[in-house]
Amino acid sequence: MPELIPIADSTWKLLEAPSTATLTTVLSKHGLWNTFMTGVHPLGNPTRMVGQAFTLRYIPAREDLDHTGVFDNLTDAQRLAVERIGPRDILVIDARGEARAGTMGNILATRMKVRGCVGFVSDGCYRDTANILSLGLPTYGKGMHAATNKTIHHPADFQLPVGCGGVAVYPGDILVGDSDGVVVIPRHLAAKVAEEAAAMEDRESFYLEKIQGGASIIGTYPPNEETMAEYRRWKESRGTPS
Amino acid sequence: MPELIPIADSTWKLLEAPSTATLTTVLSKHGLWNTFMTGVHPLGNPTRMVGQAFTLRYIPAREDLDHTGVFDNLTDAQRLAVERIGPRDILVIDARGEARAGTMGNILATRMKVRGCVGFVSDGCYRDTANILSLGLPTYGKGMHAATNKTIHHPADFQLPVGCGGVAVYPGDILVGDSDGVVVIPRHLAAKVAEEAAAMEDRESFYLEKIQGGASIIGTYPPNEETMAEYRRWKESRGTPS
Amino acid sequence: MPELIPIADSTWKLLEAPSTATLTTVLSKHGLWNTFMTGVHPLGNPTRMVGQAFTLRYIPAREDLDHTGVFDNLTDAQRLAVERIGPRDILVIDARGEARAGTMGNILATRMKVRGCVGFVSDGCYRDTANILSLGLPTYGKGMHAATNKTIHHPADFQLPVGCGGVAVYPGDILVGDSDGVVVIPRHLAAKVAEEAAAMEDRESFYLEKIQGGASIIGTYPPNEETMAEYRRWKESRGTPS
Amino acid sequence: MPELIPIADSTWKLLEAPSTATLTTVLSKHGLWNTFMTGVHPLGNPTRMVGQAFTLRYIPAREDLDHTGVFDNLTDAQRLAVERIGPRDILVIDARGEARAGTMGNILATRMKVRGCVGFVSDGCYRDTANILSLGLPTYGKGMHAATNKTIHHPADFQLPVGCGGVAVYPGDILVGDSDGVVVIPRHLAAKVAEEAAAMEDRESFYLEKIQGGASIIGTYPPNEETMAEYRRWKESRGTPS
Amino acid sequence: MPELIPIADSTWKLLEAPSTATLTTVLSKHGLWNTFMTGVHPLGNPTRMVGQAFTLRYIPAREDLDHTGVFDNLTDAQRLAVERIGPRDILVIDARGEARAGTMGNILATRMKVRGCVGFVSDGCYRDTANILSLGLPTYGKGMHAATNKTIHHPADFQLPVGCGGVAVYPGDILVGDSDGVVVIPRHLAAKVAEEAAAMEDRESFYLEKIQGGASIIGTYPPNEETMAEYRRWKESRGTPS
Amino acid sequence: MPELIPIADSTWKLLEAPSTATLTTVLSKHGLWNTFMTGVHPLGNPTRMVGQAFTLRYIPAREDLDHTGVFDNLTDAQRLAVERIGPRDILVIDARGEARAGTMGNILATRMKVRGCVGFVSDGCYRDTANILSLGLPTYGKGMHAATNKTIHHPADFQLPVGCGGVAVYPGDILVGDSDGVVVIPRHLAAKVAEEAAAMEDRESFYLEKIQGGASIIGTYPPNEETMAEYRRWKESRGTPS
Repeated sequence: MPELIPIADSTWKLLEAPSTATLTTVLSKHGLWNTFMTGVHPLGNPTRMVGQAFTLRYIPAREDLDHTGVFDNLTDAQRLAVERIGPRDILVIDARGEARAGTMGNILATRMKVRGCVGFVSDGCYRDTANILSLGLPTYGKGMHAATNKTIHHPADFQLPVGCGGVAVYPGDILVGDSDGVVVIPRHLAAKVAEEAAAMEDRESFYLEKIQGGASIIGTYPPNEETMAEYRRWKESRGTPS
Repeated sequence: MPELIPIADSTWKLLEAPSTATLTTVLSKHGLWNTFMTGVHPLGNPTRMVGQAFTLRYIPAREDLDHTGVFDNLTDAQRLAVERIGPRDILVIDARGEARAGTMGNILATRMKVRGCVGFVSDGCYRDTANILSLGLPTYGKGMHAATNKTIHHPADFQLPVGCGGVAVYPGDILVGDSDGVVVIPRHLAAKVAEEAAAMEDRESFYLEKIQGGASIIGTYPPNEETMAEYRRWKESRGTPS
Repeated sequence: MPELIPIADSTWKLLEAPSTATLTTVLSKHGLWNTFMTGVHPLGNPTRMVGQAFTLRYIPAREDLDHTGVFDNLTDAQRLAVERIGPRDILVIDARGEARAGTMGNILATRMKVRGCVGFVSDGCYRDTANILSLGLPTYGKGMHAATNKTIHHPADFQLPVGCGGVAVYPGDILVGDSDGVVVIPRHLAAKVAEEAAAMEDRESFYLEKIQGGASIIGTYPPNEETMAEYRRWKESRGTPS
Repeated sequence: MPELIPIADSTWKLLEAPSTATLTTVLSKHGLWNTFMTGVHPLGNPTRMVGQAFTLRYIPAREDLDHTGVFDNLTDAQRLAVERIGPRDILVIDARGEARAGTMGNILATRMKVRGCVGFVSDGCYRDTANILSLGLPTYGKGMHAATNKTIHHPADFQLPVGCGGVAVYPGDILVGDSDGVVVIPRHLAAKVAEEAAAMEDRESFYLEKIQGGASIIGTYPPNEETMAEYRRWKESRGTPS
Repeated sequence: MPELIPIADSTWKLLEAPSTATLTTVLSKHGLWNTFMTGVHPLGNPTRMVGQAFTLRYIPAREDLDHTGVFDNLTDAQRLAVERIGPRDILVIDARGEARAGTMGNILATRMKVRGCVGFVSDGCYRDTANILSLGLPTYGKGMHAATNKTIHHPADFQLPVGCGGVAVYPGDILVGDSDGVVVIPRHLAAKVAEEAAAMEDRESFYLEKIQGGASIIGTYPPNEETMAEYRRWKESRGTPS
Repeated sequence: MPELIPIADSTWKLLEAPSTATLTTVLSKHGLWNTFMTGVHPLGNPTRMVGQAFTLRYIPAREDLDHTGVFDNLTDAQRLAVERIGPRDILVIDARGEARAGTMGNILATRMKVRGCVGFVSDGCYRDTANILSLGLPTYGKGMHAATNKTIHHPADFQLPVGCGGVAVYPGDILVGDSDGVVVIPRHLAAKVAEEAAAMEDRESFYLEKIQGGASIIGTYPPNEETMAEYRRWKESRGTPS
């Protein structure tokens, strides 16, 4: 695996605030329209998640390989991933969108939390989900299913590009989650997107304040020249330089 | 658009109480069996909703029309709808049941609330959903998705008949929502349905009381002559004329 | 119907504790990999459910049989089932996974609770769901839909083998539900499965404790000889004989 | 099983001609709108099929019952059905619409043909389909899949009411198939429906002739008084009494 | 409806030749990536289709409006469309992708052919399909279903923008069909797309010839400078000016 | 990639004959029940295919990587695969079962045929399919779609284990296709499976002959002792030693 581009602390910090709706809009302005996962829902609380993708890929199970009852920590790709994942990492499982089994259980989730993992994302289901959720990490998935992953899945490899929830995820991509779900930000765009998102949320909080006060969307959202001037004054009055 | 048949205040009042299950049954007695939306779920609290449909229709997006980043309040059908919707209205978005994008966000929702809108219904998803839900209006949809509607949708027109959740919705149709979901009552049947629903819920509260007390459903639900006589006495004893 | 194999009180008791994840794993060790329902979710609280299957089968409705508005308690298979169901029984409705109508409402649910029924499982939807949930019985289904079952369903017969959520359910099979969903245990395996599940959960609580304490999964989960020895000592120290 | 109402030879004869489109329309005039199977396609030639339903029901497989490699002709419901099916019968398999396995193969199909069976209908798939089709019987299904039925199915029972392609099928119901697919006619309506269908096709052949000749649909389809009079004359001219 | 931009005869002529694969690629070079219908298949022969869209929109049926058995040619949007459609027109039905009914039958299809209609496109099904196909017009759809459209559909209006097979279709858009399916070309781009497609197919026929002769794709497809020079010589040698 | 186990010529030869139904049954006797692809259909003639898997994996597209209009033969995984594929190889594309674009077109298919490729398998669609089919190689897929693969796909890598049609495919696995579809035989089992399939088809041809002659399946299929003895005599009489 190639070295990942470093992400500045200021970028990580900026990414704490914006909604996935804002981030998705910002990405679309960069020409990226397919960045938000479909069918991957927040399964508990908290839902705020910021981190980088550690990918794990599942293919269909074959009985002679997967129904043996043996889990070998030295060869099984899922187990290898668990012991490599680290701080800031979010496990992203490509489970082909399958609802017919779990993709991870509580003991492995616990180990990953100990190792510094900051969230779980799967387009399949979780098993023993109540206990996973009690770990307090943001957890996104298709739902719950108690069958062990080996029922229909074979962990094939990790840290390769995958698809999850219909979106491409490259190792190291930045993921942000909130109660809507999960957006994937290409790593090289993270700094720029983070800044633009902060600026956009600032502007939109002003528009919203006006709308709440009874303004029509006409002239306000999107803003006309007058509204933009008003925004700049509002911004200055708060002492936050543009 | 033709003038809508007026709905009496007494009808609006009667519609506050019955469950969508009762209303759906009453409609089936009028020969209407496809009146409850499928795949359109309550997304927050409150879920009790009564109002009339203001319809908005989406078709698939085309990049040259919809990926421009421009939202024109004077031509975009969604924006036009937002500034026309009024008291008692419920926005009903025909989004072809698509889960792959949002169909509305928080700023427009806020504006509609200010204008008197009493609920949101979409067979697509919402974005920035947590903030929409904080408005306190009943909100029904397929789920959450942060991508802007223009990602896959083009707002085509408003106040035309549409399909939503597999049910025909004509502008002005009466919608009632509860925690099961949303029922559509043809406007011209509203008064009759409201009355029959009230009567039916009154009878069923009696049957339920008996069942809770240990009665078999045989003879009770549906009632035989004896149960019906007993019901009439019970009703009279409460002082509510049949 | 043939007499059901008796289930010992000790088995019922053992089944109170284990998660459906554990039970599904234990069943897979017996060669049974398709025992957990897909698309059948807990709809309220509580979710812990243990009982035996009382099956009810729906086929598609035909208007001349099912859109009559008449519910005959002496011939309708659903109604007959309601008045036969008893203590420890869980109603299991095979609704072909259809989301387009309810499969049961509150009055019948109330009657079944009075008769001793301990849970509801359907791969279709419920109507008047809020009131059903207020009964306090674990309730599993595809979701909510207010349309009466007769809209698209015809109750065909009861206590025959059915499919529910993609799993075979034979009358008398043992069902266990938790917040993940519902597992089906063939009745003749119940005692064995209950014991093995208890033993497995005991072992796993030990592994989890170690993982929480910082142990790698390597050597711990699955355990090597050393961990197993440690487990036996831990177990003895707690005074529970292996 | 109750004795089936006899079907007159004249009815069988009348049913040879009309399209399933005509029959579906005639049934809708009797208030039956859900009589044509969805997702059940003709898989070869010929497609014209007329006969009565012999139903077979599949539920999900369980490995200990179904993955044994043993097929017992004296207990397996599929095998029992094969040796009971007779002249005019059409095998109708309720396979829950599952595409992930076959539901019947060539050797059993051959045996049924020898026994007089006149067609096959399944909402699952066929295996060794090329050889089944070479038998020359009309064959309707979801498609082809080579996996043996026991992979995911367990034959539960036969000659009970079932659902197939979303339609209720009662044993003895009359099935007609053509290149559109399969319509189910309740047995007690067969004679009436057959007659009405013949009359309707006669009228429509006249309308079509006019349309082909350049007539507008206005006044022709549906016919006004003048067209109806013209039809009666046309009919008389052909010497077929109305 | 606004006047449609005229399409030159030379454009219509150019559009006779290119495959939908070529046209789809050319449109993607204009930034349009969602122009080919999904789930809309050729149902017979011929499949080559070139014409302009005449749109018809269906919404869900409501029994009191649609199960009356009455088809009024003066108010029913489908019937009105049939008597307005003309030469070069292709009927495009937005049927919400529903497979559970037909959307058109043979008599109306015949009338439209007489009026000059050159093809049929529906994202629903056809009924009496064998007879429709015998008209010899290219016909694209989801499949076959004998139920009359009124079973689940209500013709709402015509010549409004619609979605069909997941693609936006505006009245007058140019449709081209072949055995892959149907591509939608925005009317204002038709001339440009037609020319670019012709040029692209010319180049690709040269690359293909080389590949058939054993060339590697490297240097050939896409072409390097040498291959491009060779192409220009080949083109000149055939006497067709670039 | 590790060296593949050699396959004897005699095995390749044996694999020419048996149906995929027979092979699927033989594999199930080895405990492998999920070996036949679902949703992957033969798209033309011929359908008989025998070869070894050369896998290619697609993930979702990202506009900045995939909507550039550039296809680089030296870095694009699809292009690299095309120039590496060789005799006996069958291209197997894991396209996540997506119907919304093609996965391969005619020029690349032609190049692969020249290189010795003996078949194409994709759980996505093909574009310019008529021309691909005219190459005369067996071609299996979900259907046809003219959009270029880059519309929704990014070729990620090749010759890694993949899923296709719900089945695990490891590089070098043996694929057999017929008119039912495609079965995947783990490479290390090929010789054994080939022999058992030949023997099974020999036996079944005898049973079929008897069934065609009027025998009941009872005693014949599965065979009792007498039928087995008869089979052995029949076999000897044909001069083929058991």
